[in-house]
This record gives sequence, C-alpha cells and structure tokens, in this order.
Amino acid sequence: MANPQRNNKRILILGGGFGGVYTAMTLEKLLKRTSSVEIGLVSKENYLVFQPLLPEVISGSIGILDTITPIRRLCPNTNLYNREVESIDLKNNIVRTSSGFGPRPYQLEYDHLVIALGNITSFAGQPGISEHALPFKYLGDALVLRNHIIHALEEADIETNPELRRALLTFVIAGGGFSGVEAVAELNDFVRAGSRSFRHINPEEIQVVLLHARPLILPELPEDLAQFAQRLLQRRGVDIRLNTRLVVATADYALLDGGEKIPTKTLVSTVPSAPNPLVAGLPCKKESGRIVVNESLEVADYPGVWAVGDCAWIVDRKTGTPYPPTAQHAIREARCLAKNIVASLRGEPKQAFTFQALGMLAGLGHRSAVGEILGVKLSGVVAWLLWRAIYLSKMPGFDRKIRVATDWFLDLVLPPDIVQIRTEKSAGIGREHFEPHEVIFSQGDRADRLYIIVDGEVEVMKEEPGKGEVTLRRLGSGDCFGEIALVSDRPRTATVRSRTSVNVITMDREAFHALFAHLPPLRALFQRLIEQRLQAPTQ
Amino acid sequence: MANPQRNNKRILILGGGFGGVYTAMTLEKLLKRTSSVEIGLVSKENYLVFQPLLPEVISGSIGILDTITPIRRLCPNTNLYNREVESIDLKNNIVRTSSGFGPRPYQLEYDHLVIALGNITSFAGQPGISEHALPFKYLGDALVLRNHIIHALEEADIETNPELRRALLTFVIAGGGFSGVEAVAELNDFVRAGSRSFRHINPEEIQVVLLHARPLILPELPEDLAQFAQRLLQRRGVDIRLNTRLVVATADYALLDGGEKIPTKTLVSTVPSAPNPLVAGLPCKKESGRIVVNESLEVADYPGVWAVGDCAWIVDRKTGTPYPPTAQHAIREARCLAKNIVASLRGEPKQAFTFQALGMLAGLGHRSAVGEILGVKLSGVVAWLLWRAIYLSKMPGFDRKIRVATDWFLDLVLPPDIVQIRTEKSAGIGREHFEPHEVIFSQGDRADRLYIIVDGEVEVMKEEPGKGEVTLRRLGSGDCFGEIALVSDRPRTATVRSRTSVNVITMDREAFHALFAHLPPLRALFQRLIEQRLQAPTQ
Repeated sequence: MANPQRNNKRILILGGGFGGVYTAMTLEKLLKRTSSVEIGLVSKENYLVFQPLLPEVISGSIGILDTITPIRRLCPNTNLYNREVESIDLKNNIVRTSSGFGPRPYQLEYDHLVIALGNITSFAGQPGISEHALPFKYLGDALVLRNHIIHALEEADIETNPELRRALLTFVIAGGGFSGVEAVAELNDFVRAGSRSFRHINPEEIQVVLLHARPLILPELPEDLAQFAQRLLQRRGVDIRLNTRLVVATADYALLDGGEKIPTKTLVSTVPSAPNPLVAGLPCKKESGRIVVNESLEVADYPGVWAVGDCAWIVDRKTGTPYPPTAQHAIREARCLAKNIVASLRGEPKQAFTFQALGMLAGLGHRSAVGEILGVKLSGVVAWLLWRAIYLSKMPGFDRKIRVATDWFLDLVLPPDIVQIRTEKSAGIGREHFEPHEVIFSQGDRADRLYIIVDGEVEVMKEEPGKGEVTLRRLGSGDCFGEIALVSDRPRTATVRSRTSVNVITMDREAFHALFAHLPPLRALFQRLIEQRLQAPTQ
Repeated sequence: MANPQRNNKRILILGGGFGGVYTAMTLEKLLKRTSSVEIGLVSKENYLVFQPLLPEVISGSIGILDTITPIRRLCPNTNLYNREVESIDLKNNIVRTSSGFGPRPYQLEYDHLVIALGNITSFAGQPGISEHALPFKYLGDALVLRNHIIHALEEADIETNPELRRALLTFVIAGGGFSGVEAVAELNDFVRAGSRSFRHINPEEIQVVLLHARPLILPELPEDLAQFAQRLLQRRGVDIRLNTRLVVATADYALLDGGEKIPTKTLVSTVPSAPNPLVAGLPCKKESGRIVVNESLEVADYPGVWAVGDCAWIVDRKTGTPYPPTAQHAIREARCLAKNIVASLRGEPKQAFTFQALGMLAGLGHRSAVGEILGVKLSGVVAWLLWRAIYLSKMPGFDRKIRVATDWFLDLVLPPDIVQIRTEKSAGIGREHFEPHEVIFSQGDRADRLYIIVDGEVEVMKEEPGKGEVTLRRLGSGDCFGEIALVSDRPRTATVRSRTSVNVITMDREAFHALFAHLPPLRALFQRLIEQRLQAPTQ
C-alpha cells in the first residue's frame, strides 16, 4: 500500500459491497489497538449502496444520495483505494488497479486478501439485450432508468403517431425475482402518479409488463405470499406474463419466447447476473462461477486468501446447499471472516461460519410489502411498516438514517418528482441490434449517426420517381452506411433495412466529424466510398 | 403544435429559464378562460433551475433535485416540448427542434414567438480552456464539478508523488463576479470540511485559488461590501489573485497572464458567457449579441416576435443603459411581456417595461452573505439569514420550499456528504490541449487512448539501451500516435512530447477497438502505419 512498512501485516479487501465493507468495519473494531496491521479496501465507488432502497431512487421517494453511505465514514481507519481492480496475482500477492488522473500503472501488495467482488450484470449471448435493455443493479443504473422513464413520458406527451405513443407508454421489466418485483412496483407507482403532470397522457394508456419465466413470481418466498404479491401487483395495473422469457430486444420492441413482440422504448432486465470476470480468471477452485471456500471462509490451496459474499461458494453444513447471495448473508459472513483473519494473525483457532436467515421482505411500493420474518408470514401495511423500520435500522450510518426517515416523511406529504437530470454527454460510439426486415432509417430522416456492420446484412433502398422503391445495394459485415447524409449534412438520401439479424456499431455525428475532419486517411477513405456510391448505377 | 386548430392563436416560447417559464406562468394566469389560445414552451430540460442555489449542489448542503422545479408543475396548461431548439425561421413562423426517440424531423408553428434563450458558456479562443476547464452554469455542471472534486480528494489520499498530490489538492476558480464568488465560497467550505474524512489529507495542504481580472472582486456590489466579502474569503483560506487572468489551461496546470503556472487538476471557469448561436443567427437587430426590443419587449420589424431575459437588449429609459441579465429582471420582464401579448391578442394598448432592482445578495457559504437591499448594505449572519429567507420565498413551487428548508435544517446538524455519483459512461472521443515541451505520455505508461493531432507538432522519443533517449520521429497535423500500444495491449513503447502548442483529438481504448475490429479499411490503415513505424530506422 502507500507506505508499506515490511513488519506490518497488510490486509487487502477487494470490493466495496456489503461483504467487503463489513469485513473492513469488523477488522477495525477487532484490531482497535493493533497498529501493526494495515487494512486496505479497493472499491470502484467511494460509497456502499444500500441496495434494498435502490428501487425507491426510481420514484425519487428517497434522495439520490441517501441510499448510499460514504465508505470512509464507515471504516475511517482503512485505506480506501477508489479504483477498479484490474488483475489479481495470487502467486505473487499482487493486485493491480486502474489508473487515477494520468495513465500510470498502480499495484498493491498484501499478506491477506479478501475477495468480495460480487457478481456482475451480463447480457452476453442474448441478441440485442445488452444494446437495448437497461440493467438495474447499481445506483447509476437506477438514475439512468429514472431519467429514461421521464424522457419517455415527455416524448409521449407530444407524440402524435399512435404506435410510437403506445411504445413510449409501455414499460417492460424482465425477471420476477426479488429485485424485479421491487423495481416493477416502484416503477408502476411512479409512472402512474407522475403521468398526472403530463397534459396529454391518460394514465389508462400506460402499460407496465412484468415478464417471469416461472408460473409464480417471487420464487424466494412461500407460495401464498408470492400469490398475495402477484395479485396485489395485478390489481395495481401490472400486466404479469408468467412462463415467459425475453429472447431478443431491439430499439423498438421486446420479443418473447412465444413469438409475441411487445412494442416498447423502455425495457429493464434484472435477470442475468454472471460471475465477475476477475473471479472467473482466478486459478482457484469454483462452483457455478463462485469461489469455493472452507467453513472458515478461506480459499483452498491459497493460505491467506479469503472470499465472502456473492462471489463465494459457502456450503451450509446443515443443508448441504450453498448460502444464498443476499446482503443479510454477506454481512454475517464478513463478520466471521474478519474474526478468522484476526485469529490467524494471532495464531488462535478459527471459527466455522453458520447462519440461519432471519427472513425476507419485499417492498411492493405504495405502502405495502410482503415477507416472512422468523417463520411468520406478513403482508400489506404491517409488512410495509416493518420493512421500513427494519431497513432504517440496518442502514449504516446515523446521518443516513435521519436523511432517509426525512425523505420518507416528505414523500408521504409531497407530490412525486418528475425532473430529469441528465449529466451524460453523448456516447460517441454505441452498439445497436436489429432483427430481420426492420427499417434502420428512412429516406428523409435526420442523419444523426454512422453505422458499421459487425454482422448480418442490410439493403439500401431508394424511392425513385416513376420507378418506385429500388434496391441500390446490399451491405454486409465490415461495411458501413449512413456516411453520405452525415458528410453532406442533409437528410438521409436512402432507406436502409436489415435483411438478416444485424449488429452494428454506431458513431454519432460529433465523433464522426471530429475524426473525419482531422484524420486525413479516414477522410480519404470516406470520400472514395461516397464517390463510388454516388456514381454506382442502380443494381 | 400537436393538433393545430387553425382558429387558435399559438404562442410559442423558446427557453426554459426564468424568462421563458415566467412568461408561460403569467400567460396561463391571464388567459385562464381563453380556450382559443395555445401556449407551447420548448426547453431542453424539463425543469427550471433555481440558479442562486446551484453552488450549494457542490457541497451537497441541498439535495440535487431540490434546486430545480418541474416546469410542468409551474405551468400545467402549457404544452412542454422537452427538446432542443435547432432553428428559428422568422419568415415562415416555424421553429425546428431536435428529435426524440428516433431520427424524425420535428417542427412547430406559431403566431407569437417569445425568444428566451439566454446565453451560453463559451470558451472559444482560449487555448485549452474548453478542453480542461469545467464550466459552472447548469445543474449538470454542478454535479460534474462535485464529482470531480471528490475524485481529486480520493486520488490525493493515495498519491505518494508530492507534486501530483499538490496539483490534486489545488482548486482554481476563474472569475470573481457573483457566480464565481458564490462557487468558490461553497467549494472552499466543502473541500476543507470534506477532507477531514480522508486519512492522508491534511486540510492545510489544500489550496483554493480565485482568479479575478480586476482590483476588487464582486464588481456588482458597492466597494465596501466587496471588500468585506474579499477579506472574509481570504480569512477562510481562499487565495485571491487580483488583476490576474487565466490564459491557457492544460490537464496539469492553469497558466496566468503574468506567466505563472498553477499546477492543478481542478479548474473552474465562470467567466465567459456568449450569445446563444441561435440568437446570433437571427436576422433581427442586435446589440452586444442581444436582441434589441422596444419598450413593449417586441422585436423591431418582426411583429409577433418578442424577446426576454439575458438574450434581450432592453434599455432602461431612465438611465439609457440596458437592464442587467439577472433572474430578478427576467421575471419582471416576463410578466410585462405576457401582459403585452395578451393585450395585443385583445387589441388593447401595451405597457412599457420599467423596473428598479430591489438589490443583490451573494452567499459566501458557512453562514455568511453580503449584499444591498433597497439601498441598505448588509453583511455577515444577518445577510445570510435574509439571503436564505428571500431565496426560500422566491423558490417556485410549495413542495420545493419544504424540501429546501428541510435540506438546510439537516445540513446544520449532519456532516457533509462525500459520495461521488458517476453516471457518465466513457466519452469515446475527447479533446486535449498541450503547451510546448510537455510530456503527453511516457514510455511504460498504460495505453488508454489514441491521439490524433489537430494542430501543432510532437516528437516521439525512446530510451534505447546504451544510447540514451533518441528521437524516433516528429509528427504534425493529421498524424496520429499511440496506436502501437493500443493494438498490442502493452504499455507505451515510447515517450511523446509536444514541440509546439498542440491540440489533439483522443479516442479511448474501447472506441478504438470497436472501430479497429469492425471497420476493415481502418484496420488496414492502422496495420500499415504500425508496420511502417516499427520498421522505420531511428532518425
């Protein structure tokens, strides 16, 4: 770390979720008077997200900053490295991180390593999902989703094309597990209440659809509670499609496994979590992508290496099954792990991890919740009050408790917020997916981007006086299109349609002009291409 | 507009600042029972920013959403077009806007047009300022600045190089007018209080510098009050450099007109506002880039076209000088303008605009302010209490008043927030500026971007065993560099230094690989270039 003194023991924790932060907090408590141990924590954010409250960021019923707590406040004696982990070298006890200001390499050494990297959202392998579905895992995701929803309402309010209007007012969430249900409940409340501020939107036009692969939502809960939640959401207007999977997404619709297309401009996927690629690349033993640890939470064959939370495979010795990847478990595992590290530093015996979950509660928005606590089933307002009370008490940091309590109080008395905060600059380079026989752009459209075909085939069509629509050319992988209108700053001179399923890379107008103006070989390339295309006879 | 009924009169307002929104609010009030008039407002944000409170977003003493009010709540009977204005055709009474979802053109027709487009931040003509200085005008700017400051503190906390540490802990604000002074006051409070949460930062290492071109800050106020504010900021640790201008900025320092370089990673410029290019492009008469209107706020030679706020040149008939571009004036102008539109619809006489400013107050952070109200000079805690009371009373929307009052109360009792919210994706394409003889990157650095030279000259150097540093080649406008390490995924194989002042376009790793992998001509281009460069004999 910053100034390693070689007699000091260095404990390095990777990951700023519940597992990592609670390990650091417990270590600080246990090592209070031990100045010979340095604790380091690498986290790509400088805050801990209190994930159970993330859905409330969508509706703004809780302040954006109030779902998160600064890690430095929670563990003030830990060195926080606000960086991304880039590689883990278990052989040489070295972790490399991303750079800060300036491109210098950066590395940290350790004596004990705690891997708490969680899992990641991965849409790999599903056509169009990573291009067109919004993830819902991090705070940034919740903000992006909120802004996207408001943008859709703004556009619907002034849209006269009835089909596009319908797509703008249709919101599809894939995944009926805990996070999907909590997200759909808040989203549904928010769009229905928020739409009242829009002059030309009738709340009855709004469709909120939940896609779930099994016959009943909330598989984590007992069947009667799940049924209660399902009925309640349906009563509030959520269209729940059971035994249904999302298979393809485009900019215009969600395609279901039964073949149905739901036209929508807002598709959220809470389903797929995949192992962190850093964890996947480690040489140690894994099960289902998670690191296998022993009952003391140590990684086999790598003394001094530990794993905790969603990325760890910890078997419950009573049931023989792994503990589930929840915050509740990560916190208990972290406490046990911290004690075991201290025990191993002091040469004392380590303890085995064991924990019986206390229960589960899912917020359903609008003063209701559902769950089971210590074997007692709860639903409705009582569950909701308990849900708020429990989460308030668990929220780390006293100032956060006050802020959240205040937010909740104000939310009861004030109308929902519909301001849209955009801080993102234009993306420059993006990716899009089209299914066969779709219009990518139409003659006369504004030219806002260049397309480069990754795979698939498109055809370029033109409306010619007296001849009708003629095919100008077909293009495939490695070809680009859309450059003529971009260079000449005119509307699109032709219509482009996909012939097959097509993946493209897009470059926006600003990026294209910056490169085109300043990279002469690229300019020459496009000028030649444009000349050829403008001179080419109609095929 | 959406469904124009040809008998209806259509009033279209451009701009969602105080001028535009208060025009719409007043029109709604005056036209309550007149269903034959349609009001439309085009605004790129769906909220009105209460700018006087923007500096408090830096410190987080006020919730991010609470400085802004949804426009739809303020004028519920106005059609809000949440788009950007792209062109104004005064001859044919047509306004074109940006597209929503999808690239279709969009246009609006009008009978009366109110131009309330304000002015914009423009760094044109100052080398490096637009690339490396942060603007401070919109809500997005305040959020970006806040995140940048926290990022600098995070990096300083783990940085061991003393020079870089010093640059990370130096914060420079250019411009000692109202907005610069309010921003520097909040920034200074925030970094000094926030730094206490960082283990390895000593608050005494922090430098906050205010650059001001004149001999005294706050030229808007009487001299003794400005002197009071100046002394107070200095006492709180702000290093005020008077009679000093910022001339050049790079990623590493601010260059002053005296030749001094201040190493910094955080440079904020509140100085330059320029006419909105849309206004500049209009054929009507202008003064200093502002639209000349008569005393009824009508644009000469264009009946039915009106202008209000910062983009309008309205002469005070008592003094013969134009009214200043402040919110206070924009609101009064908007009310007068709305009355005059209604009068002209009804064929009644119009009134002349006249207004005597009530006074000015500048917040100085940390329970102090300074100002003059109705001729009475105020400073210190009394001014601060008045400042908060006045702004709270002026804040549009009842729910916002409650939220802001709550924020202020919590801020008195809770510690400052240091969480950093990043929603921005990587920018893809960027711009940077270097002064002569600077290292752009060093051999061994990480390869994180490609550089394309817009203008200037660089030299590529390599450390060769036995020979020391040798010059491999010189590159100029239209050349690119940095591709070898990007393609091979290795550290930089050479050092690149600027020989002259250099402007570059950068393309980040992800964008480069996307284009390189999928655009075969581009790949061939770079492969040829790399072969040539690797084979070229040392010059």
